[in-house]
Amino acid sequence: MGREGTDFLQLHRRAAPRGGLTAWLVAEVRGAVAEGRLAAGAVLPPTRTLAQDLGVSRGVVVEAYRRLADEGLVVSRVGAGTVVVGSVTGPPPAPVVAPAATGPLLPARTPAGVDVDLSPGVPDLAAFPRAAWLRAERAVLATAGAADLGYGDPRGSARLRTELAARLARTRGLRVDAGQVVVVSGVAQSLALVAQVLRARGAATVAMEDPGSRGARDQLAHWGLEVLPVPVDDDGLRVAELAATPARAAVLTPAHQFPTGVVLAPHRRRELLAWARAADGLVVEDDYDAEHRYDRAPVPALQASAPEHVVHTGSTSKTLAPGMRLGWLVPPPALHADLVAAKHASDLGSPVLPQLVLAELLAGGAHDRHLRLVRTRQRARRDAVVAALARHLPSARVEGAAAGLHLLVTFPDGGPDDVELAARAREAGVLVHPLSWHRRLPGPPGLVLGYAAHTPDRLTEAVARLGRAVGGARLGRVLAAPGG
Amino acid sequence: MGREGTDFLQLHRRAAPRGGLTAWLVAEVRGAVAEGRLAAGAVLPPTRTLAQDLGVSRGVVVEAYRRLADEGLVVSRVGAGTVVVGSVTGPPPAPVVAPAATGPLLPARTPAGVDVDLSPGVPDLAAFPRAAWLRAERAVLATAGAADLGYGDPRGSARLRTELAARLARTRGLRVDAGQVVVVSGVAQSLALVAQVLRARGAATVAMEDPGSRGARDQLAHWGLEVLPVPVDDDGLRVAELAATPARAAVLTPAHQFPTGVVLAPHRRRELLAWARAADGLVVEDDYDAEHRYDRAPVPALQASAPEHVVHTGSTSKTLAPGMRLGWLVPPPALHADLVAAKHASDLGSPVLPQLVLAELLAGGAHDRHLRLVRTRQRARRDAVVAALARHLPSARVEGAAAGLHLLVTFPDGGPDDVELAARAREAGVLVHPLSWHRRLPGPPGLVLGYAAHTPDRLTEAVARLGRAVGGARLGRVLAAPGG
Repeated sequence: MGREGTDFLQLHRRAAPRGGLTAWLVAEVRGAVAEGRLAAGAVLPPTRTLAQDLGVSRGVVVEAYRRLADEGLVVSRVGAGTVVVGSVTGPPPAPVVAPAATGPLLPARTPAGVDVDLSPGVPDLAAFPRAAWLRAERAVLATAGAADLGYGDPRGSARLRTELAARLARTRGLRVDAGQVVVVSGVAQSLALVAQVLRARGAATVAMEDPGSRGARDQLAHWGLEVLPVPVDDDGLRVAELAATPARAAVLTPAHQFPTGVVLAPHRRRELLAWARAADGLVVEDDYDAEHRYDRAPVPALQASAPEHVVHTGSTSKTLAPGMRLGWLVPPPALHADLVAAKHASDLGSPVLPQLVLAELLAGGAHDRHLRLVRTRQRARRDAVVAALARHLPSARVEGAAAGLHLLVTFPDGGPDDVELAARAREAGVLVHPLSWHRRLPGPPGLVLGYAAHTPDRLTEAVARLGRAVGGARLGRVLAAPGG
Repeated sequence: MGREGTDFLQLHRRAAPRGGLTAWLVAEVRGAVAEGRLAAGAVLPPTRTLAQDLGVSRGVVVEAYRRLADEGLVVSRVGAGTVVVGSVTGPPPAPVVAPAATGPLLPARTPAGVDVDLSPGVPDLAAFPRAAWLRAERAVLATAGAADLGYGDPRGSARLRTELAARLARTRGLRVDAGQVVVVSGVAQSLALVAQVLRARGAATVAMEDPGSRGARDQLAHWGLEVLPVPVDDDGLRVAELAATPARAAVLTPAHQFPTGVVLAPHRRRELLAWARAADGLVVEDDYDAEHRYDRAPVPALQASAPEHVVHTGSTSKTLAPGMRLGWLVPPPALHADLVAAKHASDLGSPVLPQLVLAELLAGGAHDRHLRLVRTRQRARRDAVVAALARHLPSARVEGAAAGLHLLVTFPDGGPDDVELAARAREAGVLVHPLSWHRRLPGPPGLVLGYAAHTPDRLTEAVARLGRAVGGARLGRVLAAPGG
């Protein structure tokens, strides 16, 4: 692949629309990558050359390349021009098995023979805003003071905490100032710190939604808490059953329950907060993917209604990438000092440069632009999965599709064990989580499907394979029934 | 400050040496900053302009600017040219009180009224290699795969572990492969993880050098271990006294004891390893500043002699900056799985981008270039402090000056309480750590002086003030003696 201008793209200026030249050019390049005309490693023409060839202003091409870079399709290498790195249709280079929500102790790599990984909990990593990140890092390195690089405040950079407090107030309704925010290494660390402090205060148990994140459950157990399952129905956590447990702390995902996708209903919110006040209890609000809501604005965070009883936590794992290990924790005042001490004793504080870069992305609007981009894309992916499920798995019930990066498929009329279903899907090259991994109480079988990392075409094809695998399993069960 | 070429520097080509034009130009700019002719915010001339004015090739200027950027004196801002940000003479913008070695629970900010902060444990943050870091980050963002950004291996990035294993083998003599290395958030996290695993295995006590890092001691105590002090003499830890304690694990700094600066003597190394083998004990080797040795190559790490009984740990806090929160842990095989599980339960793993950037800096040689640069500079600073101490505090004994970023001053003929000495120094605007902060066993008073962050002139002036403060205290004591 040379730099011969527009030939490689088969672009013709006369094919361009009168307005929206940038969007047209972005779509053309994206299409060329999707169809394989542009492979990873291909070098795009210099902006000046392409602009001349097309008879457009150079700014149009510069902006188009920037958008493509923000999508993760291309990168600009110093001295080497703009190079294709992403692939629109193919799988990511070496997909990982996604730990659910906050990361269970599951294998971290996709097993051999799997070519579509639908594990929940991972965003579209190819969309990571590499160019925006690098621009922000450059700005940070140009402006940070030497003292910013020293042993810092264990709560994290004041600049990031200020940005986070403002954002959480605006988008999630939190009542918080920067002094209360603690920067952490993701929700996983929040749960670890909270568990440590609860244990130190004598707690032996913690309640958790069931089904709920396997990763969160394993982690709370690691820190010495007995995890008591509380059932979830279509209105979210059943608070009466929580109140019947000895636990005085509960971990839940009110805005978008993992993995069922239900929203905690208003009457349940009231019951939950009444429980917390009466029992002097603590609610740990894992706000893991509230940013990704397709139907309406997300419900305000629980913390806004009872800051004395709620630990609010979230991260960039679902908006940027889990590898960032960057999140926030907003505890009640009574727990603040103990949690900061626990953070200090764990690692003295989180690394400073990524904190300052995130602050820059939030302040400059690049984070919001990225969210808008991925939200639109994920919605199309969600629609493709839902349509394919209606066609290839018509007996399944689809839940939790209004938000997030995954949905839940259940089989209300029963069916084979979901671990068996997942095993059959895996034989067909499609990796999904059986619902039973994420639950301990009995319930109908189900499959958790993460769709954020794949194109609509690929998702449609994967669901077709899944349908055949599940259909085969159900048929096998019917045939086997008389004898077994 | 405009961009008027060489006027601002009062540079003349005829003053330049025949060879070494780049070094000459670097020195001239550095001098202009040191003398205040170039203030922070000043814009350097474009490379082309300056090259023309001086009659040198543009490459000379480009390289000079790059070296100045690597020193942290200037940054290149897109669209704004090359801007002075560092200050050779002044204090860093807002110095922090340096937690010693691995960070004690001390105030993180310099108190009001202090204008020379000689707290130990912080490198010259103005020298952070911003330009090299940004170049490496650009390379990482251009080449990392999408899967690199997902939930990763809790041990850390394979690329970084490979670089670290090679480097530790080469520079510290470790017997290690990449699979054994665990990337952590600094030595502080290593101590936290080791303490957790020891506690889970039933240990109640851990031995530690005395004097030793206050930060390490506080941290081990946080995780529930009783810390038993073992005295240090001129040969390092007194192993016979370690063997007399019930502890079967000991934390020490063999290559450069903190804060005395002594090296663990060969006979003591043998005794320590014999103790570990006989007691099935564990030695935690905190290799916190082995990179900074001025007299000879550092002694090989203890781990090389007994990988079954030594946890080796180090970090970038003393070579790059403490704010990186990036280090490594090389445990014995028998502890490896438990430590990785503890790391996973703490935060799932360290943030990936800084890991990949460090791997790039190590692989490309930029890290070594940076180390050579700061080592030369620190040596000059060390020499200035030692000379000033001989002049202004002739009765003091200077220890541990052959390596590291700090030295210890003791008063063998006794003297006032070192907390009182430090308080007097602070009244004179000079912050030092009293030795007694870092010890629990009795011993002569002393002061720990970190010198890495200040220029020789400033250090000389600070030691003069220190001498007056200490002299006043000693005189006060003599005068008060008859009555008290």
